Amino acid sequence: MSTPIQDSALPSWLADVHFDAQGLIPAIAQDAVSGQILMVAWMNAESLAETAQTGRAVFWSRSRNRLWRKGEESGHVQRLVELRLDCDADVILLKVEQLGGIACHTGRASCFYQRLDLQTDTAGTATFKWVTVDPVLKDPELIYK
Amino acid sequence: MSTPIQDSALPSWLADVHFDAQGLIPAIAQDAVSGQILMVAWMNAESLAETAQTGRAVFWSRSRNRLWRKGEESGHVQRLVELRLDCDADVILLKVEQLGGIACHTGRASCFYQRLDLQTDTAGTATFKWVTVDPVLKDPELIYK
Repeated sequence: MSTPIQDSALPSWLADVHFDAQGLIPAIAQDAVSGQILMVAWMNAESLAETAQTGRAVFWSRSRNRLWRKGEESGHVQRLVELRLDCDADVILLKVEQLGGIACHTGRASCFYQRLDLQTDTAGTATFKWVTVDPVLKDPELIYK
Repeated sequence: MSTPIQDSALPSWLADVHFDAQGLIPAIAQDAVSGQILMVAWMNAESLAETAQTGRAVFWSRSRNRLWRKGEESGHVQRLVELRLDCDADVILLKVEQLGGIACHTGRASCFYQRLDLQTDTAGTATFKWVTVDPVLKDPELIYK
């Protein structure tokens, strides 16, 4: 669970956002120019406020239980172009400029590199399979030194 | 909570997907041509399987606790063009053709119609505010008759 900012202390634009029981909201990062969906991560009120104020994408890392300033290790910072909220106020959309052209920790442009394909075997049986269709642009070992 | 399909009964492509403790996974619907993000909803294994097999977006409605075949009331069906999975296998991306050009129950093209703007009052104080920036294309009362 994240460290929630007290509701009473929230400015109204943050109070409008529906964080879940853990104080988190899913956030989609989309390339502002190409429209490619880069990744989905989580935000708490603190990370959302810092994102808006600094113009740099900041998430809440559930695994490390702390603020995650995207690119802090990799250099793959996301500069904020526009912030959007959906009709239920429970999903955030960040339109960003992705520095380095790589959003995924695997070294790919986007985290959504697996596509569902229907494959037919020699017996003519068709089965669905997730297929990796996007290339690694940089070896992760060179990204996270 | 949704009705989970038993793990042992899942075909391998569905077993590869990491559903949460409630048996659900968030799913982003994106216009396959324009790249516009239309909406985010939830899927369980059954809705994901039906989506892949029928080529039509099917979600799990948490409020109604049942399968939600997108467009069943509104006619605003989403035809599946491509299905993607992210690196952690915990978010689904659907590239779709949005029939009627309206995904949102408010009658807008996309659910993400609120943009965060910095507004300055006459005293020169700047505050953030969510501003509705996209038009209603069809009156919801005419959509849900």
